[in-house]
Amino acid sequence: MAFKMIKNQRFLSCSEARLQDIQELRFLGCQKSKGFFSIIKEDKKTKARIGIIETKKGPIETPFFMPVATKMSVKFLTSEDLKTMPVSAVISNTFVLHLNPGEKLIKKMGGIGKFMNYNGINATDSGGFQMYSDKIYEKSNDKGVFFKNPSSNERIFITPEKDMEIQLDINSDIAMCLDEMPSVKGDRKKITEAVRKTVLWAERCKIHHDKLQKKLPKEKRQLLWGIIQGGLFTDLREKCAKKMVKMDFDGYSIGGLALGEPKNEEYRIVKFTRKFIPKNKPVYLMGVGSPDEIVEAVSQGVDMFDSRFPTQNARHGTIFTSEGKLRIKQLRYFEDKKPLDKNCNCFVCKNYSRSFIRYQLKNQETVGMRLCTYHNIFYLQNLMRQCKEEIRKGTFNSFKKKIMKLYS
Amino acid sequence: MAFKMIKNQRFLSCSEARLQDIQELRFLGCQKSKGFFSIIKEDKKTKARIGIIETKKGPIETPFFMPVATKMSVKFLTSEDLKTMPVSAVISNTFVLHLNPGEKLIKKMGGIGKFMNYNGINATDSGGFQMYSDKIYEKSNDKGVFFKNPSSNERIFITPEKDMEIQLDINSDIAMCLDEMPSVKGDRKKITEAVRKTVLWAERCKIHHDKLQKKLPKEKRQLLWGIIQGGLFTDLREKCAKKMVKMDFDGYSIGGLALGEPKNEEYRIVKFTRKFIPKNKPVYLMGVGSPDEIVEAVSQGVDMFDSRFPTQNARHGTIFTSEGKLRIKQLRYFEDKKPLDKNCNCFVCKNYSRSFIRYQLKNQETVGMRLCTYHNIFYLQNLMRQCKEEIRKGTFNSFKKKIMKLYS
Repeated sequence: MAFKMIKNQRFLSCSEARLQDIQELRFLGCQKSKGFFSIIKEDKKTKARIGIIETKKGPIETPFFMPVATKMSVKFLTSEDLKTMPVSAVISNTFVLHLNPGEKLIKKMGGIGKFMNYNGINATDSGGFQMYSDKIYEKSNDKGVFFKNPSSNERIFITPEKDMEIQLDINSDIAMCLDEMPSVKGDRKKITEAVRKTVLWAERCKIHHDKLQKKLPKEKRQLLWGIIQGGLFTDLREKCAKKMVKMDFDGYSIGGLALGEPKNEEYRIVKFTRKFIPKNKPVYLMGVGSPDEIVEAVSQGVDMFDSRFPTQNARHGTIFTSEGKLRIKQLRYFEDKKPLDKNCNCFVCKNYSRSFIRYQLKNQETVGMRLCTYHNIFYLQNLMRQCKEEIRKGTFNSFKKKIMKLYS
Repeated sequence: MAFKMIKNQRFLSCSEARLQDIQELRFLGCQKSKGFFSIIKEDKKTKARIGIIETKKGPIETPFFMPVATKMSVKFLTSEDLKTMPVSAVISNTFVLHLNPGEKLIKKMGGIGKFMNYNGINATDSGGFQMYSDKIYEKSNDKGVFFKNPSSNERIFITPEKDMEIQLDINSDIAMCLDEMPSVKGDRKKITEAVRKTVLWAERCKIHHDKLQKKLPKEKRQLLWGIIQGGLFTDLREKCAKKMVKMDFDGYSIGGLALGEPKNEEYRIVKFTRKFIPKNKPVYLMGVGSPDEIVEAVSQGVDMFDSRFPTQNARHGTIFTSEGKLRIKQLRYFEDKKPLDKNCNCFVCKNYSRSFIRYQLKNQETVGMRLCTYHNIFYLQNLMRQCKEEIRKGTFNSFKKKIMKLYS
C-alpha cells in the first residue's frame, strides 16, 4: 500500500511530492515534532532513519540526494525535467555564483529558486570545494580565503561574514559555512591547520548568520550547516565534530571525503564522525553519489547527499541500473534492443534502446547525454525512495547488502 | 474558431496533430483527393497553398518546416520534446547514417522512426550536401560519388542505386535522389556539369527506386523527390527542372540555395524555378530556415523547408521572436525579467527570464542551449501554423509583409 503511494508520486511536482510524503507519514501514524527536523522512522538493524527537514520553501523528506546545479542548472536537465522525477533538492555553488552573475542579480530576480524556475529546495555550498582548484584558489589565512577570478585574474577575498551575506542574497534554503577543504591525501600538519581554520570560520559564520537572520521574519529563515573536516585522521575528525556541535548548527556536513581515498576508508571515517553528531540533527555527506556509498552512509544515519558523479558518469556512458553499472559505449550494445534498465520506469527506459543511446553517445550527440543524465538521476531518486520504503518495512539492511553487492 | 482549434493542437502528439488538421479541413468543407498530394486551399493574392502529403507513416499538412536531425536527433531535443510542439517532420542524412551506425543496423532496429522513437514523418537527404565538405567529399564521376570516411580514411563509392538502397533500409518516409551540389558561387562550367550529373543520377535513382518499390506493399511505399540544381543561372535551372519533371517524381526539391548568396538572388531563383514544377506536386526548398525566407518562399508556392539555421542560431544566442531577432547574449538583457518573447506560449517563455537564459548561454551551460533551441523550433512551428491560418483567412500576403519587415 505504502509502496503504491510512493510509486504514484513519480510525476508529481516537487512540492506536491514532499507534501504527499508527509501526508503519507501522518497516515502511517507518525507525528511531526515542532522542531525544524523530525525523525519519523528509525531502522532497527542499522542507524538508517527517515526524517523531515522543514525549510522556508517547505518540508523535505530525508534521506535525499541532490544533483549538482553549480551554475543554477543541472547539465542537460531543465527544472521541468527535475519536477517529473521529482528531484526535491539541488545544490549550487556560492563562490561560482558570486563571480558570475553575482548575488545581487540573483537577489534582484527573486532569489535562486525563482530565477531558475525550481520549486524544490535549493542548497548552496560555500565555496570550500573550490579550494581544490588551482585555477581559482590562491591562499587562505585566519581572516578568510583569497580566490582569483579565472576570467579576469582579479583577486577576491572572501571572509566568513561575506560568504554568509552572499548565500543570504542568493536566498538558498540550506547554506553551508565557509570551510577549508585540504586534499584527503594531505599530511597531518596541513589537515590540522585546515581543521583549525574551518572551526574559526564556522564560529564567525554562525555569529554573523544569526545576526543577519534576526532581521528576517521566521518563515524566511535560512538553515545553516557546519562542516566537519579532518581528512582520514579520527582524532582530528573528533575534535572538529565536537567543536562544531558545540556551536549548535541546524545540520552538519561531513566534508573532505569521496576524493579518491579507498571506499572502506571513507566508510570508516563516516561511521566514526557520525557518532559525535547529535541524533536530532540532519547529517550531510558531501560529494557522495555512488549507489553503494549512499546506502552504506544511509545505514550510518546520513540524511543528505550530493555529487556530480551520476551526471558526469552519464555523459561518459556509465549507467546505473537495477543490475549494477552498465557501460553503454561498449560494442556489445551495438544492436541491443533492450532499455538501459528493464526495471526502470523513466521515459528513457520506456522509449529508447541501448543501441540508439549508444549510437548517440558514441557520436557526442547532446541527446545521448541528455537521455543518460535523465536516467541516472531518475535511478538515484528511485534509490532514495527505495531506501525509505525498506526502512519503513524494516528490510533496509538486506536491501543495503543487495545494492553493495551490485555496485562493488 | 479554426484558430482556436489550431491552438489546441499544441500539446497533441505529431500523429494526432496531423489527423486533427485533416479532420479540421473536412470540417471546413474540404475534400482530400485520392492522390498522395492534395491541395486544399489556395491563396488568391500569392501562390501560397495548403496541402496534404500522404506518406506511409500518415498524412502531413503543408507547408511545414523540418528541424535537422542529421544523426537521428535534433541537438538538445529528444523526440518527446518534438511531440510537445508538435514537430511533424524531421530530416536526417543518408550518407552520415551510412557511415555510422550503418543502414543495416537501422533496418534491424525497425527503421529510423522506431529507432529514434519518433512518430512524425522522417525525410532523408541523399548526401549531396556532404559534397560541400572537404573532409568527406573526394570526387565524382558519371557513375557516382567518391566519399571518404573521415574517421578511418576509407574510400566509399556511392552510386545512385546504392543511395536508393540505403534510404530504403533506413526506411524514411520521404527520400531524395543523389544530386551534385556545387558551390553557389561556382562558375558556369562547374554548375553545368553538376546539373548534367544530377539529371543522369536522378534517372538511375528513379528506375532503381521504382524497381525496389514494386516489391513492397502499397502502404509501405517510400516517396521520392527529384532535386533541381543550377546555381544562380536561370537557363540551367530551367533545363534541370524540365528534365526532372519529365521523370515524374513524387515531389521536387530546389537545391543549392541559401549558401551565402544575397537573399534577393535566392528569391529570384525560387520564383523562376517554381514555374517549371507542376502545381499538383509538393515543392521543397532545401536549407532555408529563416522566417523571412520561409514566408517569401511560401508565397511562391513552396511547401517544405529544412535548415540547421534555427538550432545553430539558438546555440549562439540568436532568438526568433514575434518582434524580430533578439541577441540574448547582449549585456542589455543582464537583468531583463521578460521572457524571450512575450507573445510565445512555449514552456521556455512561460517559465524563464531573458536574464536567466543569457546567464546560462554566456556560461556555455547546456540548459541554456536547450531552452533556446526549444524556443526557436517552437517559434518556427508556430510560424508555419500562422502561415496556414493566414492562407485560410485570405490574409497571407499582409502577414508575409509583416514577417519580411520584422526579419529584414
